[in-house]
Amino acid sequence: MPEHVSTRTDLFERHREVLDRAARAAVERDYWSPFPESPSTSVYGEEAPKRGEEAFRAQLDRPFVLDGHPGSGTVDPGEKSPYGFPLGVTYPRVGVDEALAAAKAATRAWRDAGPDTRAGVAAEILHRINAASFEIAHAVHHTTGQPFVMAFQAGGPHAQDRGMEAVAYAWQEQLRHPATARWTKPQRKGDPLVMDKKFTPVGRGVALTVACNTFPTWNGYPGIFASLVTGNPVVVKPHAGAVLPLAISVRIAREVLAEAGFDPNLVILATEAPEERTAAEYAVHPDVRIVDFTGSTAFGEWLEANARQAAVYTEKAGLNTVVVDSTDDYAGMLRNLAFSLSLYSGQMCTTPQNILVPRDGFPTDRGTKTADEFAADLGQALDKLLGDPARAAGTLGAIVNDGVRDRLDKAASLGRTVRPSAPVEHPEYPDAVLRTPLVARLDPDADRDTYTREWFGPVSFVIGTDSTGRSLEIFRETVREHGAMTASVYSTSEEVLAAAEEAALDAGVHLSENLHGAVFVNQTAAFSDFHGTPANPAAGAALTDPAFVAGRFFTLQSRRHADPAGRQ
Amino acid sequence: MPEHVSTRTDLFERHREVLDRAARAAVERDYWSPFPESPSTSVYGEEAPKRGEEAFRAQLDRPFVLDGHPGSGTVDPGEKSPYGFPLGVTYPRVGVDEALAAAKAATRAWRDAGPDTRAGVAAEILHRINAASFEIAHAVHHTTGQPFVMAFQAGGPHAQDRGMEAVAYAWQEQLRHPATARWTKPQRKGDPLVMDKKFTPVGRGVALTVACNTFPTWNGYPGIFASLVTGNPVVVKPHAGAVLPLAISVRIAREVLAEAGFDPNLVILATEAPEERTAAEYAVHPDVRIVDFTGSTAFGEWLEANARQAAVYTEKAGLNTVVVDSTDDYAGMLRNLAFSLSLYSGQMCTTPQNILVPRDGFPTDRGTKTADEFAADLGQALDKLLGDPARAAGTLGAIVNDGVRDRLDKAASLGRTVRPSAPVEHPEYPDAVLRTPLVARLDPDADRDTYTREWFGPVSFVIGTDSTGRSLEIFRETVREHGAMTASVYSTSEEVLAAAEEAALDAGVHLSENLHGAVFVNQTAAFSDFHGTPANPAAGAALTDPAFVAGRFFTLQSRRHADPAGRQ
Repeated sequence: MPEHVSTRTDLFERHREVLDRAARAAVERDYWSPFPESPSTSVYGEEAPKRGEEAFRAQLDRPFVLDGHPGSGTVDPGEKSPYGFPLGVTYPRVGVDEALAAAKAATRAWRDAGPDTRAGVAAEILHRINAASFEIAHAVHHTTGQPFVMAFQAGGPHAQDRGMEAVAYAWQEQLRHPATARWTKPQRKGDPLVMDKKFTPVGRGVALTVACNTFPTWNGYPGIFASLVTGNPVVVKPHAGAVLPLAISVRIAREVLAEAGFDPNLVILATEAPEERTAAEYAVHPDVRIVDFTGSTAFGEWLEANARQAAVYTEKAGLNTVVVDSTDDYAGMLRNLAFSLSLYSGQMCTTPQNILVPRDGFPTDRGTKTADEFAADLGQALDKLLGDPARAAGTLGAIVNDGVRDRLDKAASLGRTVRPSAPVEHPEYPDAVLRTPLVARLDPDADRDTYTREWFGPVSFVIGTDSTGRSLEIFRETVREHGAMTASVYSTSEEVLAAAEEAALDAGVHLSENLHGAVFVNQTAAFSDFHGTPANPAAGAALTDPAFVAGRFFTLQSRRHADPAGRQ
Repeated sequence: MPEHVSTRTDLFERHREVLDRAARAAVERDYWSPFPESPSTSVYGEEAPKRGEEAFRAQLDRPFVLDGHPGSGTVDPGEKSPYGFPLGVTYPRVGVDEALAAAKAATRAWRDAGPDTRAGVAAEILHRINAASFEIAHAVHHTTGQPFVMAFQAGGPHAQDRGMEAVAYAWQEQLRHPATARWTKPQRKGDPLVMDKKFTPVGRGVALTVACNTFPTWNGYPGIFASLVTGNPVVVKPHAGAVLPLAISVRIAREVLAEAGFDPNLVILATEAPEERTAAEYAVHPDVRIVDFTGSTAFGEWLEANARQAAVYTEKAGLNTVVVDSTDDYAGMLRNLAFSLSLYSGQMCTTPQNILVPRDGFPTDRGTKTADEFAADLGQALDKLLGDPARAAGTLGAIVNDGVRDRLDKAASLGRTVRPSAPVEHPEYPDAVLRTPLVARLDPDADRDTYTREWFGPVSFVIGTDSTGRSLEIFRETVREHGAMTASVYSTSEEVLAAAEEAALDAGVHLSENLHGAVFVNQTAAFSDFHGTPANPAAGAALTDPAFVAGRFFTLQSRRHADPAGRQ
C-alpha cells in the first residue's frame, strides 16, 4: 500500500469519533463544539499566542508561498490593517482558466476516494487550522478590524465549528444511500429477479467561494468544506481586503491534501488586486458549478441571476429587526441591545438595525417607557458600555473600510440622531478608525424609505409605532420584502411571543426572544442555531442544513443482475 | 376536539406503518412496493375492473366536477384518445391569479399541521388513488396511448409508488432536525447558559406541476406529493392532451383534504385549452416558488432560465445510449433491446436511442457480429416480438400525437433505415395509430448531427464505431453535452464494465449492465432505482432523492432562555 493511502485511511479513523459526534450534534442541536473558544494558554499551549503572533508578523511585507500552486507571478491585493498599517503581503497570481484547469485535473482521484476519506481529510485540515488559531486571529484582526478576542473566537474556533458542521452535514448526506444494495423482486412464477446495485456520490464540479471583508473564515469555511467533502475542488476568491486569513487556511488545506496523496490543487487561492473583478468572471464560467458568496445584495442578486450553470448559495443583506413589546428586565434588555449594536461596530450581517417600539409607551419593571424614553435610555446604555476607551476598543474593533464610515456620516445627516456616533481612540494603534453606534429616531410611515434600506455598520433606528400589533405587521412586511438575517422580540406576554413567532414564520426569519443576558441576537452557535435562511431575501442558504449540501453532489447508480438466473 | 382534527391524527396513525416502511425502503433500496402492480381481481377485487371502466365511461362527454374549486366556467382541453375518439370532458376554468390566491389562502393551516399530519393525509390520498387504479388506467390509456396493462401499471401502482417515495423522502427530510431542543452551554464561572429552541419546517410557497402528455401521473405525482408534504399548496397544470388522469387524482386529493378539515384548494387543477400557454404565465409569477416540469428540453430550459423566483425541477430529454461490447447471450440481448425499443412505441424518456457497436465485429455466443449484422438481427428480433398484431398492440400502444408521427417520417427520410417502421392494426380500435420501431444505421462521425439530437418516439440508431473504447468516448462526450435519462452496456469483460461505469460517472448518468432478461433499461423501480439525475443536462432532478425535497421547505428557528438564570 503506498504511504499516502494509509494516511488517508488513518485520517478518517483518527477523526471518526469527532465526525460521529459532529453528526450527532447537528441532529440533537444541544451545545457542542470540537474547538475550544477560549484563547487561553491552558487550552492552546503556553507558546501558542506568541508563536501565532510571530507567524503573522513574519508573513508581513513578503510573498505568501503556496507550493505547487498554479499560475505565475504575484498579485498585491493591497491589504491594509484597519488598525493603521499596510500588510504588504503578495500572493500567487493565477488566471481563471489556469485555476479551473488545475482544479478539474485534481478531481477524479478525489471523487474515487469516497465520502469517508474526504471527511477524514477535511477534519484533519480543520484540526490543523485550529492549531493555527492565533496566527489566523491576528490575520483576521488586521484585515477585518475585529477586536482581537472576537477575531480569535469568530475567526478561529467558531469558524472552525461552522466548518466542521459543514463537514458533518456533507459527509452524512452522502451516506443516506448505501454504497451497494441487492434488490430482490418476487415473481409470480419462478425465481425472483435479483439485481446488485452500486450508488456513487459524484461532485457537481468546481466550486467557487467568494468571501467577504468582515468574516473571511466564518462565512468562508462552510461552503469550502461542504464542497470539498462532497467531492468538488474549490477555488477560494477572498475579498481583496481580507486575503491573509484564507491564504493561511488554503496553505494548510493544500499541505494536508498533498500528505494524503491528493492533488493540492483541490484547493486554489484566487487572489485579486483591488481593481480586479474576477469573481464575476469565475462565476459565469461553464466549469464553475457551485458558487458560495457572502457580501452585498447587489452582487448576490447578480450571481443568482447570472451564474445559471451553478448552484448558488448566497448571504446578502437585510433589515435585522427587534420588536419591543414589554419587559420585566428593562436594564438587562438595554444592556443586551447596547452590546449587540456595539460589537464590531455593528459591522455584522446580524446586527439589529430596526427597533420597533410602541410610540406612546410599553410596560417595563421600571415603569412605562415611551419610544423617546427608550431611545434615550439605549443611548445611555451605549455610553455606559463604551465609556472606557480601552474596553470600548475591545468591543468595537475598528471600522473595516471607508464605505462604513461614509454610511455613518450619511446617517448623521438624516438629522434624526438621538445618540450620535463618536470616535474612540485606540490605546495601541493611533491610526485606527473606531466609532461608537449611532441611534436615530424614525417614524414608521414618513421614514419608511430610510429604514427599508440596509445601513451596514453602527447605525440603528428606534421606530415608534402605534402598537405592538403594528410593529409585528411592519416586521412581517419589511422582512418578507427586504429580508433579514436576524430578528428578536421582547415581551412578557406569551400571547405576544406566540404572535411574534407566527409573524417570524410568515416573514421567514429566525427569532430570538427576550435576550437579557449573555446570549446576543447577532451570535449563532454551530450545531444548534441556523444562521440565515432562504425563506427570506437576505440569504439563499442556511448555515448549515441539508439543503446547503444536498445540491453539491449527485448520487449515480449502476445495476446488474446478481445471477444469470436473472436472465430468465 | 373538532372531528377533522381527530381525522388528521387518525390518518397519520393509520398510515404510520407504511410510511415507516417506505422511509426504510428508500434507505435500504431493496425491492418494496406498497401498491400491487398486477391488475388482478384477486388483488383489487372482483368488481374493480368493471367499476373502473364504468367510472371512466361515465365521465366522458360531460363536465368534470371539483367541489369548491376556484374559478368559474369550464374549459375544454380537447382531449382525444390516441385510440380514436374524443373524450369530450370539460374542466373548471380558473385564472392564474384566482388559483394562486386560493392556494395561498389555504397554506397557513397546512403549515401549522406539521410534517406527520401532512404525510398521513398524503398517504391517504395515495391509498384512495390506488383504489381508483382501474379508472385511472383507462384515463391514462385513452390520453397517452399506453397499452392498457402498462397504463394500469405505470399510470397506477408504479406512479403511486413514486408518489409514496416522494412522501417518504419529504416527510423524513422534515424530521432531520427535532421540533424542539434544549441547548446547555457550560460557562467558565457560574451556571450554564440554557436555551430552549423550536424548529419549524415552513413550505417555500405555491408549487406548480407542469405535467406531460405521456406519463401524467408517473411523472406528476413525485413533485405534487413532495411539495404537498413539505407544506406547499400545489397547482397542477396538466398537458392539454392528458388532463383526465390528473383530474381524477386532484379530485381524490381534494376530497381527502376536505375530510381532514383542510382547505381543498391546497390542490388546484389548472386546465388549459390547447392554444393556451398558462404554464409560462404561472411559472414566472412571484407567488409561484416551486416548479416541477416534465417535457421538452426547450421549455425546460426556458423554465430554468426564467422562473428565477422558484426552485425548478425538470425532466427534459437526452440521448439514451447503449454500448455493446460483447455478450454471452446474444439472443437474450436482442430480445431485451427489442422490447425496450418497442414498449409504448419508444415514447418513453428512457427508451434507448443511440446503440454504439464495434463496426467490424464483437464477440458473442453466436460468433462475431458486425454492426451491420447486429442491426439486421435487431430488426429480426423486433419482427419476432411484434409479429402478432394483437400482441404487438399490447406492447406498442398508440402513437400519442402527430409530433411523434412526423418525427418518424423524418427519420425514414434520412435514407439510413435498416429496419423500417410499419403500421399495425389495433384489434379493437381501427382509428388508432400504431407504429413499430424504426432502426437506422449511422456513422459516428458523418452522422453526429443526427444522433446528437433526441428523436422522441420509435426511432433508434445503430452506430458502428472503431472499438468499444471509441464507443465509450462517444458515450461520455455526447451524454455529458446533451444529457441522457438512461444508459446501458453489454460486455462479458469486467474490465470493460469497469470502464463503462467510470465513463457513466464522468458523463453523469445511471448505468444498467447486461440486461438480458426481464429487467429493461427504460424501467426504474421506486425505492431502489433513481430516475434521472441533475448530473447531466437531461434532467434537473432525480426521482426521488433528498435534493428533490430539501429545497421545498425551510426550517425556521426560535429560541429563548429556558430560565431567568440565563439572564446573568
